[in-house]
Amino acid sequence: MSAAVSPLAPKSYPSMPVIEGVRMATAAAGIKYKNRTDVLMMVFDKPAAVAGVFTRSRCPSAPVDHCRRNLGHGIARAVVVNSGNANAFTGAKGVAATDLTAKSAAEAVGCSEREVYLASTGVIGEPLDATKFAGVLGTMAKDGTGDFWLEAAKAIMTTDTYPKVATRSAVIDGVTVTINGIAKGAGMIAPDMATMLSFVVTDAAISSAALQALLSAGVGSTFNAVTVDSDTSTSDTLMLFATGAAEARGQKQVSDASDARLDAFRAALNDLLKDLALQVVRDGEGARKMVEVTVTGAESDAAAKVIALSIANSPLVKTAVAGEDANWGRIVMAVGKSGELADRDRLAIWFGDIRVAVNGARDPDYSEAATTAVMQKEDIPVRVDIGLGNGRATVWTCDLTKEYVAINGDYRS
Amino acid sequence: MSAAVSPLAPKSYPSMPVIEGVRMATAAAGIKYKNRTDVLMMVFDKPAAVAGVFTRSRCPSAPVDHCRRNLGHGIARAVVVNSGNANAFTGAKGVAATDLTAKSAAEAVGCSEREVYLASTGVIGEPLDATKFAGVLGTMAKDGTGDFWLEAAKAIMTTDTYPKVATRSAVIDGVTVTINGIAKGAGMIAPDMATMLSFVVTDAAISSAALQALLSAGVGSTFNAVTVDSDTSTSDTLMLFATGAAEARGQKQVSDASDARLDAFRAALNDLLKDLALQVVRDGEGARKMVEVTVTGAESDAAAKVIALSIANSPLVKTAVAGEDANWGRIVMAVGKSGELADRDRLAIWFGDIRVAVNGARDPDYSEAATTAVMQKEDIPVRVDIGLGNGRATVWTCDLTKEYVAINGDYRS
Repeated sequence: MSAAVSPLAPKSYPSMPVIEGVRMATAAAGIKYKNRTDVLMMVFDKPAAVAGVFTRSRCPSAPVDHCRRNLGHGIARAVVVNSGNANAFTGAKGVAATDLTAKSAAEAVGCSEREVYLASTGVIGEPLDATKFAGVLGTMAKDGTGDFWLEAAKAIMTTDTYPKVATRSAVIDGVTVTINGIAKGAGMIAPDMATMLSFVVTDAAISSAALQALLSAGVGSTFNAVTVDSDTSTSDTLMLFATGAAEARGQKQVSDASDARLDAFRAALNDLLKDLALQVVRDGEGARKMVEVTVTGAESDAAAKVIALSIANSPLVKTAVAGEDANWGRIVMAVGKSGELADRDRLAIWFGDIRVAVNGARDPDYSEAATTAVMQKEDIPVRVDIGLGNGRATVWTCDLTKEYVAINGDYRS
Repeated sequence: MSAAVSPLAPKSYPSMPVIEGVRMATAAAGIKYKNRTDVLMMVFDKPAAVAGVFTRSRCPSAPVDHCRRNLGHGIARAVVVNSGNANAFTGAKGVAATDLTAKSAAEAVGCSEREVYLASTGVIGEPLDATKFAGVLGTMAKDGTGDFWLEAAKAIMTTDTYPKVATRSAVIDGVTVTINGIAKGAGMIAPDMATMLSFVVTDAAISSAALQALLSAGVGSTFNAVTVDSDTSTSDTLMLFATGAAEARGQKQVSDASDARLDAFRAALNDLLKDLALQVVRDGEGARKMVEVTVTGAESDAAAKVIALSIANSPLVKTAVAGEDANWGRIVMAVGKSGELADRDRLAIWFGDIRVAVNGARDPDYSEAATTAVMQKEDIPVRVDIGLGNGRATVWTCDLTKEYVAINGDYRS
């Protein structure tokens, strides 16, 4: 773990309200880190609806396999998350570890193993000794409390320098429902997704099918639009649970994601997902600056996203940002290498509000001093207009610093 | 420019023989760097055959456009290369600069502008003042000498820490012919290709069409199999010229690349291209270690190359190598994110001769100490067997160090 908190960390944490129907507990099992919590258990006292989005890695972790398999059953009663070990590329031992954890959690809660969801984050390829925490799940299930979100976020941190929490509310059927979420980063963060874990819970009554549709649609411009280092993890997991506790207050269950009653909820959920995703980027390993890359005028939205990600993943663009250098030549390079249609002589590039290049050459009016002032800020907006169509996309990344190299050159040893 | 020479630099330079039919001169025009040569001119006193391979960037530089256009004519009389400014994304001014340079060189040599080839490397987006060197091309054309290869290589350096030269010979029709090459890196090095310039000249008599076929086939496993930072330049240029001077010694012109008389030449050329390409990687910005990634057992050779490049371009793999950490979990991650078919439980991974993972888990017999000894060397061979087919590829990269960030966070300013 890095010693210092990211300079881009939030200045304060929101007060996280209790969500009826979910309780949490943490434990310090000593999986890798000493003197800190590294296991989180969430318990739903009544069956909760569940949705999930996972890594597109062809070599996913054992917990990802486990969750994907269980998702078909559509019911969640418990979630167990550990940090310090990803239980990825651990073969038969990895499956044994997920089986033991699921069995122990199911016994502790009094449910089926199919209703238990698992996630692990940390080093890849080392066997996870699940006996270290399987024995304490019974106590954790009993002692869980609803007022524990910040602690939960802390327990799942790896190289994160701050815990990530967010909360929103929305009204369905005249009833106010709450959405709380936690997340962890902070390396191997790339679209599709990252060593990124995030767990979002609402007290709304929404079916698993509708939740899944909301979540799948919501990730495109949030968690799947952030990149720290272009490396996709084996373990990325984003899950959304609905306890349905709001039914007791008069909210009728919604089972169709296109139901207009979900409009406000959808907006609140997407806003929360974006909040958490940006917190992950702002804690990117070694990050000192946040970059928002917007591409307009591409052939299509999909092409715009490919170009935006080519810019956001370019080591040369990211080191230039670290050096506070408005090096738009490297932006041109990244547009060119994306493979998407682009015409050099139609490109225009802005840093903040300053147009530095237009019509295939440096903007004659651009002020180096004003541009430098933009680059010296913490948040750097970059916009590229391709000049060919109406495609548009925004992605977020951070700069590439010596600290990134230090953190990742010295992680496992 | 980085002050210190790469620790991976060659211990000595080969003695570069003169190649009949080509003369070179350099000049210090002060384009960007002070007190060093930054313009190279090559002159072919008789028309030479010519072939070229260029960047796949959608926003290529003005000189790349110029060369592509001229290549159809199949004759070279002069090459002008400058460092310090890439003349890329320079719009109409960029075209004017190439036109002026080609015109001045054609006048100096007494040939058509169609027979002049150009390349520029350095910063992108700044107008290139070609008047700085257009005036001296006449003197350069007159004063050129054949014994000037190392000086030529020095004149085209940007952030390179050492000049890159290579020489080979082969026999055609019982006549020994020579192939000399120079190249420069060292950032924006990625397949398809890099801010990589390379000029190769032979005295063999080979038609332009045959040269082009040889060159296009030769780049796949050489220049298009190296990556420093995954960033593809706007300016990548690899050209091959044949003066035909060996005809005077009895070699008959070869006009078909599949002619068996070219077998030895082809092997020598490919060996030279690989030599130069690896020299580029060994001078990767900030590089302290060279990594050779071999993927076997993939579905196809193409799939193997995609997986190998996913490994070689991963910042997490490259920082682990910098930290001398045999972090094979990150290799698994990179295999998984490549998108190619892979089965976690069939993967095997070696560092050097040490198998660290097999059948989806850590190899029980692997010695951490022996693996650390491998990682402490300058040259790190990594092999991954996918276990699915016969596809095979090898690519080369370097580690990602704090020096890379320092060099690129402080380049333009």
